[in-house]
Amino acid sequence: MDIKIQPIKESKISQVDFNDLKFGSVFSDHMFVCDYVDGKWQNPSIVPYGPITLDPSAKIFHYGQSIFEGMKAYKDTEGNILLFRPLDNCKRLNISAKRMVIPEIPEDLFMKGLKELLKVDNAWIPTNEGSSLYIRPFMFATGEGFHASPADEYKLIICTAPSGAYFSGKVTVLIEEKYARSANGGVGFAKAGGNYAAQFYPTQLAIDKGYNQVVWTDDNTHEYIEEAGAMNVFIRINDTLITSPTSDRILDGITRKSILQLAEDNKIPFEVRKITVKEVVEAAKSGELKEMFGAGTAAVISPIAGFGYKETDYDLPEIENSYASIFKEKLLNIQYNRGEDIHNWSVKV
Amino acid sequence: MDIKIQPIKESKISQVDFNDLKFGSVFSDHMFVCDYVDGKWQNPSIVPYGPITLDPSAKIFHYGQSIFEGMKAYKDTEGNILLFRPLDNCKRLNISAKRMVIPEIPEDLFMKGLKELLKVDNAWIPTNEGSSLYIRPFMFATGEGFHASPADEYKLIICTAPSGAYFSGKVTVLIEEKYARSANGGVGFAKAGGNYAAQFYPTQLAIDKGYNQVVWTDDNTHEYIEEAGAMNVFIRINDTLITSPTSDRILDGITRKSILQLAEDNKIPFEVRKITVKEVVEAAKSGELKEMFGAGTAAVISPIAGFGYKETDYDLPEIENSYASIFKEKLLNIQYNRGEDIHNWSVKV
Repeated sequence: MDIKIQPIKESKISQVDFNDLKFGSVFSDHMFVCDYVDGKWQNPSIVPYGPITLDPSAKIFHYGQSIFEGMKAYKDTEGNILLFRPLDNCKRLNISAKRMVIPEIPEDLFMKGLKELLKVDNAWIPTNEGSSLYIRPFMFATGEGFHASPADEYKLIICTAPSGAYFSGKVTVLIEEKYARSANGGVGFAKAGGNYAAQFYPTQLAIDKGYNQVVWTDDNTHEYIEEAGAMNVFIRINDTLITSPTSDRILDGITRKSILQLAEDNKIPFEVRKITVKEVVEAAKSGELKEMFGAGTAAVISPIAGFGYKETDYDLPEIENSYASIFKEKLLNIQYNRGEDIHNWSVKV
Repeated sequence: MDIKIQPIKESKISQVDFNDLKFGSVFSDHMFVCDYVDGKWQNPSIVPYGPITLDPSAKIFHYGQSIFEGMKAYKDTEGNILLFRPLDNCKRLNISAKRMVIPEIPEDLFMKGLKELLKVDNAWIPTNEGSSLYIRPFMFATGEGFHASPADEYKLIICTAPSGAYFSGKVTVLIEEKYARSANGGVGFAKAGGNYAAQFYPTQLAIDKGYNQVVWTDDNTHEYIEEAGAMNVFIRINDTLITSPTSDRILDGITRKSILQLAEDNKIPFEVRKITVKEVVEAAKSGELKEMFGAGTAAVISPIAGFGYKETDYDLPEIENSYASIFKEKLLNIQYNRGEDIHNWSVKV
């Protein structure tokens, strides 16, 4: 399918300070748009970034039928545009789509639209350390009517935003004892919009107590560590790295699985298994808890400086050559085309 | 706060066949709109029903930060416009708002906007039996940015749709064994948009098997009956009416609590308690299961003709003077101002 390109008349790029980028708050000149109408994805086009117009009865407003992905584009010193495991994002978008009864997008159409968009907005990809072009593909129900059933029309949009770090400063987390992110048999594994709004209130309570994020636990017992909403969670006890297995409650993070592969490649001992809060607290008390960190596309690898649980705060030690720093360096080296990439994760556009 | 009214130039009402109304698919001429900007709700206005324009980064598209209510307006034989317990919907909207970190709407502003809208679109309230004006208030995040945090701007819209019955024909349900609607400590009690999209896939599987709706069970054991997504569920074993208690997983339905009050008023024995699937199946086998019905604003009272569980179908008997028919008549008599209303549930606009 040919992609129609309608370029902007005048770029906004001169108004942007690339040395002072927040996360996801300045948007590039163009966006990729594709419509699902009459039972098929059609009219793929790249158009100026601009308003979306919808009927008030569009189902996105009423029934939360929306999904998204988070990706990043990087630029190497030669000016090549690089993506990191982009097909994995496309596949996960379609896994989310299936669960939310949104029509899947053909992989080749998604990849073609994404790559064309990056070429058109090439100048928007930051080159300064710590910044990248955050890519936000999202799909939502545009079909109309108040009946609580799947829509008949959808829109896929890919927007991009030159972005700095997701977190500023040290990250502390609160291990949740009351609220929950997802149900067994629910949609926690999908990047469904509603999963995120559902976390805002408990997260706000945690922020009010001085933490940055909530580490979710299972909704039934609150005994098991799950994920942190914007990132998967890794725990290092002595020299062993531990993370929860994915499930229908936990997102199959691309950074998460890349870390597990890098651990295997580099002979860092790791376990993918259920981990109890009790185990983490006891390891913190005994000094065996060496590290905790979050992993996600937006957050990259974010070391956790401490956690709260049952009104008690536990600090994590600052250690040299932490696993977090090792994995972060290895990942960034691959993402910016500076290091060996034995799994061919980096894809040139 | 004064409500600015911008009337349409020409009504669409002549194009509508009021004798052939579907549910929520034709919209009245006007809508009430109010914006939350700069930390307060402002600019309440009634404008022609028409498109909403949003930035692609509006958080409604990404994080499902949206809630809604379902209400109905009725007209009595004298032409009075009637609402049913409208303040309860407003209060529940604000309960949902709090959980989803959406600013609460002042009750007087909500009620004034709603009543003005109904006066302006008075002609759209159906008078034929079985039809009513479905009212859809909804609030959603218009604030922008890709950071997964609450928006800084919101919109409240109230739209209306002259509507026929939500279900056509007999309703059969599938008692769910695998998927779940909500988590302990989650948002199941809120009318959050994302709760609905999350039900589409399991509901589609049930529809493919020949059922209309899913009856949700708890996500941990699937042993307890919860609700049906678009309605609360009532079960009659012998002469006792049973329904699940509300919780953070189950919507506090206004039709549900009205039925419980009517049961008390009319000395119909009822129990609000957890009810197991096992108990329902055994009652079906022994013949003690007399009725099941769903209750909700859209569905009113919908008798359930049969249910499926573990690959077995159970038919419910057709009985005369069913509780469902008794409650439905009593409710409709109050809603259409035809009968005694000792609790002052009906409110004249």
